[in-house]
Amino acid sequence: MRQNTTGLLLVVSGPAGVGKGTIDTELMKRNPRIKMSVSATTRAPRPGETDGVHYFFKTPEEFEQMIRDDAFLEYMHVFGMNYYGTPKAYVCEQLQAGNHVILEIDVQGARKVKETFPNAVRIFIAPPSMETLKARLIGRGTETPEQIEKRTRTAFTEMRDMPACDYIIVNDDLETAVNQLEAIVRAEQCSVAHNHEIINEFLGGMEQC
Amino acid sequence: MRQNTTGLLLVVSGPAGVGKGTIDTELMKRNPRIKMSVSATTRAPRPGETDGVHYFFKTPEEFEQMIRDDAFLEYMHVFGMNYYGTPKAYVCEQLQAGNHVILEIDVQGARKVKETFPNAVRIFIAPPSMETLKARLIGRGTETPEQIEKRTRTAFTEMRDMPACDYIIVNDDLETAVNQLEAIVRAEQCSVAHNHEIINEFLGGMEQC
Repeated sequence: MRQNTTGLLLVVSGPAGVGKGTIDTELMKRNPRIKMSVSATTRAPRPGETDGVHYFFKTPEEFEQMIRDDAFLEYMHVFGMNYYGTPKAYVCEQLQAGNHVILEIDVQGARKVKETFPNAVRIFIAPPSMETLKARLIGRGTETPEQIEKRTRTAFTEMRDMPACDYIIVNDDLETAVNQLEAIVRAEQCSVAHNHEIINEFLGGMEQC
Repeated sequence: MRQNTTGLLLVVSGPAGVGKGTIDTELMKRNPRIKMSVSATTRAPRPGETDGVHYFFKTPEEFEQMIRDDAFLEYMHVFGMNYYGTPKAYVCEQLQAGNHVILEIDVQGARKVKETFPNAVRIFIAPPSMETLKARLIGRGTETPEQIEKRTRTAFTEMRDMPACDYIIVNDDLETAVNQLEAIVRAEQCSVAHNHEIINEFLGGMEQC
């Protein structure tokens, strides 16, 4: 009997600037079975962005039809301007093909996904300290105090979600953080929650012994 | 802020002959922070066994005094003859020193430990198939049919405990199984359950921001 080979849904969150994207990209380099979810959005493509690769670009009408069709795992309105969402179809296809899918989404989206997929694994990437986070949010001094204030408030709201996650990775060293995320993927494939089928096969098989 | 460095209590169970000892020994070679718990017993030392290394050898009176002193994480009577138990002191010392401790105990003991230490991580080592397990139990043909029947019944009782564990490792390849156990240790160090302190530090720190 073999370990579960169906894919894992990995929901990665954490405040802006914490290094989520870099960690995820490094992990994908190591493990070709790990795929990044492609979001849908109503914002216009930027130079170099390809439909279906960076985003699925949609008109507001198309996006709203997808909402009515229950085609999203989660979606949101950013600043009341553009829609962003995670289409179910791509995620489900990848999971069924045995790939793991990373969703890099905000905590509100993460909570919605966990409601739909209780087996989703929630990973929070935290900064080494609040001071580092604040320094990163203040950034290169190009933002107005109001913008910094807004980013700080958002980041702090994200941080409050830590206890609702399954794992915390403190990103003070990229290599260590990637190793930790890789270990989480490997360990979760062994979790009882992801191996009910194998357990049932064993226990079913025992009836016949 | 750094990831949690306190030790993990790893409770490894699985039917006799499944390879628990080999996997644990290999893991300890890779990670010097992982220690095997030393059991106490009332049985006589066998040639080559050292007190405090292989077992803590006790008289029945000493063992029973330890029971009265609540000095065991779990203990049992084997065939109504000898006592076997896991002394709390050694385990707690190792955990406080930041080492991880493996308890290789039966499912009844494992359940007791999980009651006392809800954060204990329960790992079940399963055979590749029920057929393999039966073949191993029948062994080299040196046992009576009654002994085989007894070992089979015990093994099957152990297997029924799989759903109560946190992780299942199917031992069809030693290297893979050790990698999986190593990943579980690394992942669990990042689990929210093992990082409440760091979370509280972050959330406490935010109040002052």
